[in-house]
Amino acid sequence: MSKVINIGLAGFGTVGSGVAEILAEQQSMISAKIQQPFELNIVKILVRDTAKALQHPLVNESQLTTNWEDLIHDDSIDWVIELIGGTTHAYTLVKAALEAKKPVITGNKALISEYGAELFALSKANQTPIYFEAAVAGGIPIITNLRQTLSCNEIKSITGIINGTCNYILEQMSVAKISYDQALKQAQELGYAEADPTLDVNGWDATHKALIISCLTYGFYVDPKLIHVEGIDTIQATDLVLAETLGYSLKLISKIKKQDNGAIEIRTQPSLIPKSSILSSVNGVFNALLVDGNYLGDSFFYGQGAGKFPTASSVVTDLITCYQDQATGEFRGFLPFVESGEVVAAELTKSSYYVRLNVIDQAGVMAKVTQSLANSDISLSGTHSPIDPSNPDAEFTTMVLLVHTCEYGKLKSALNTLQTEVKEVTQAPVVLRIEDV
Amino acid sequence: MSKVINIGLAGFGTVGSGVAEILAEQQSMISAKIQQPFELNIVKILVRDTAKALQHPLVNESQLTTNWEDLIHDDSIDWVIELIGGTTHAYTLVKAALEAKKPVITGNKALISEYGAELFALSKANQTPIYFEAAVAGGIPIITNLRQTLSCNEIKSITGIINGTCNYILEQMSVAKISYDQALKQAQELGYAEADPTLDVNGWDATHKALIISCLTYGFYVDPKLIHVEGIDTIQATDLVLAETLGYSLKLISKIKKQDNGAIEIRTQPSLIPKSSILSSVNGVFNALLVDGNYLGDSFFYGQGAGKFPTASSVVTDLITCYQDQATGEFRGFLPFVESGEVVAAELTKSSYYVRLNVIDQAGVMAKVTQSLANSDISLSGTHSPIDPSNPDAEFTTMVLLVHTCEYGKLKSALNTLQTEVKEVTQAPVVLRIEDV
Repeated sequence: MSKVINIGLAGFGTVGSGVAEILAEQQSMISAKIQQPFELNIVKILVRDTAKALQHPLVNESQLTTNWEDLIHDDSIDWVIELIGGTTHAYTLVKAALEAKKPVITGNKALISEYGAELFALSKANQTPIYFEAAVAGGIPIITNLRQTLSCNEIKSITGIINGTCNYILEQMSVAKISYDQALKQAQELGYAEADPTLDVNGWDATHKALIISCLTYGFYVDPKLIHVEGIDTIQATDLVLAETLGYSLKLISKIKKQDNGAIEIRTQPSLIPKSSILSSVNGVFNALLVDGNYLGDSFFYGQGAGKFPTASSVVTDLITCYQDQATGEFRGFLPFVESGEVVAAELTKSSYYVRLNVIDQAGVMAKVTQSLANSDISLSGTHSPIDPSNPDAEFTTMVLLVHTCEYGKLKSALNTLQTEVKEVTQAPVVLRIEDV
Repeated sequence: MSKVINIGLAGFGTVGSGVAEILAEQQSMISAKIQQPFELNIVKILVRDTAKALQHPLVNESQLTTNWEDLIHDDSIDWVIELIGGTTHAYTLVKAALEAKKPVITGNKALISEYGAELFALSKANQTPIYFEAAVAGGIPIITNLRQTLSCNEIKSITGIINGTCNYILEQMSVAKISYDQALKQAQELGYAEADPTLDVNGWDATHKALIISCLTYGFYVDPKLIHVEGIDTIQATDLVLAETLGYSLKLISKIKKQDNGAIEIRTQPSLIPKSSILSSVNGVFNALLVDGNYLGDSFFYGQGAGKFPTASSVVTDLITCYQDQATGEFRGFLPFVESGEVVAAELTKSSYYVRLNVIDQAGVMAKVTQSLANSDISLSGTHSPIDPSNPDAEFTTMVLLVHTCEYGKLKSALNTLQTEVKEVTQAPVVLRIEDV
């Protein structure tokens, strides 16, 4: 006996049509594999342009509507899938669906980031679940695994490469030796970057995902204002070359970490990753998350972070979870699961660092630099001064300092002092974190 | 309102005590995280040596029994965890538990491999589930993900490194340049290999896991006799060096693949993996599975393949799944989900290959070798003859042939012909598959 679920699908773009196609092709296989007999029918599709939607072979006219309220007021619709994106209409729709006690499945990262707290409260008040596997890291099932297979672990840290656009650009700069602007242009031509790539390259897209992951890991909402975020838009080719020379890859890393005192650290920055780390093997537009659990040790999840079918596959995963949760007859929410928690200010977060200085090449500069840093109680694990063989008498030289683990604020302050004290330091230092993974 | 589940735990060795410790430490956190209020109580523990078990601070005398039937006939016991290992007592216990309609959670790979078909049938007949996440790849949640997050995908292939002992030995041979015997001894000293390492190093441990994964992926049971299995016990250091030179890592790979005609290919062999593949980064005793799904593309799962807490963590994952499945009031089995399927004979499986020959170094040998292979319709993509600079006039030389994709049986037959036709080939060729991952 199959249980029939009627679905209202909002949005029939790339991902929406992908969901319809997967359900049409795999319905019976899914049911056989998970050994639960259910039938998911898309009975209503909300679109802006009905003529365009009708070009799709799976769509017929009776399914289509341009009025979002049709998904809410039609009592035959059991669940709502929201794939229209943005935070205005999507917010209105999801709120109305939860109030009408229709479970919601969404792939909308912006919506969850911006209205998560409100929507989860509404979800709880109405005992109606909201799922969002597709909102974070596309095809990587990190949400489902955090809630299921990782749930008995105290998570010490999660280190993620969760913006494929940035990962592609950095890789191209490193491998193909092209500039940031060239790599960005290439990413745009290949469809890996938006026409306006700001949110990707400034680190905020990754940070929105990190915030969602952090909430699910530690159970409370975090104010985005507390987060230290840097993008890749100021990365220079020379740092990629130097990182390589020193045995590192340069990646945009989002870090979520529980400190010994229980406070949570969240940050997104271009960071150096040892070549020996599995994270260093994440190339192209792939995403990955390295999870350090107290029982499991390192677990690593890797897959496509975007794209029609990887994302649609995650929506279908949520449909399955929704079916199973509903079958218990009990509401099962996500958040919050602890009252509140502390977030560490960016200045107090610790790591080791790569610092690149541009200095006037004079006798005694290295001594002045290292003495100034020593006075500020900054300890170095190594230095590296590449020499340009074709120009041994260059006026300026590059000096890379590898800095032992210390607070970020302390390093920044020491570097400010350095710039004041040592006039041979001609530019603001480039500071990149080194991740010990 | 917490639902209380009483558990009978069979076996209190490394993993069993780990499960008890995780439940004692994390019970309330798990319930908060998954937002389902339940309490798991270990009310009875089956041991051989009660005095030894009593040394553990979580154990009290009233819990202990040395009679397995106490777990079955005690009506207050809801579920049974089987961690005694082996296939005699474990089989009797699991069978009795299913017949008594007590859900079973086991970490026993041998049991599932050997008696899977019978136990799954019994499970279905009694509408009582059996779970086994801990039986495959320790802390990697591959079973749960195959049944949930990957279930809408048609799986094209799974490429696994699923024996940590072999992976450690091969890595040490490659990195530390030690012999197979030395590396095995080291693995034994570190507790990574058993005193009798046969099942690990001959490839059968990995194959048992691959068979379970294949069943869950394609839905039918496979006769182990149909599988092509080679271990690492005959691997020579020279092949690790040559693989490295050619840009490959040498790993023990288990491959599960659906061919275009729908037939399933399963095999375990030492294989060459391109350095650029993420599988090449899997070092030490870690396990990993690269899953190629029709919608998700490449998904990669990586983690500890053995050990007390990673394995115990997987047992706890199954306890959570069991709770959720039970809450629906409906039985949810695993297998089979298709009536039957075809398995490809080893001789008909295809890949590209690395073939190493030892030949007498005479003029014209390369021509004879390549002509003989050409006559057998074997096509080469490259050759490599390393030269020993200290001995340019050596009597014997090594010749590596990289063979284009062809059937394994065809290559073997061609190499037999080669050995008959070309007397300068002095030893049986070493044949390793090259995996295109």
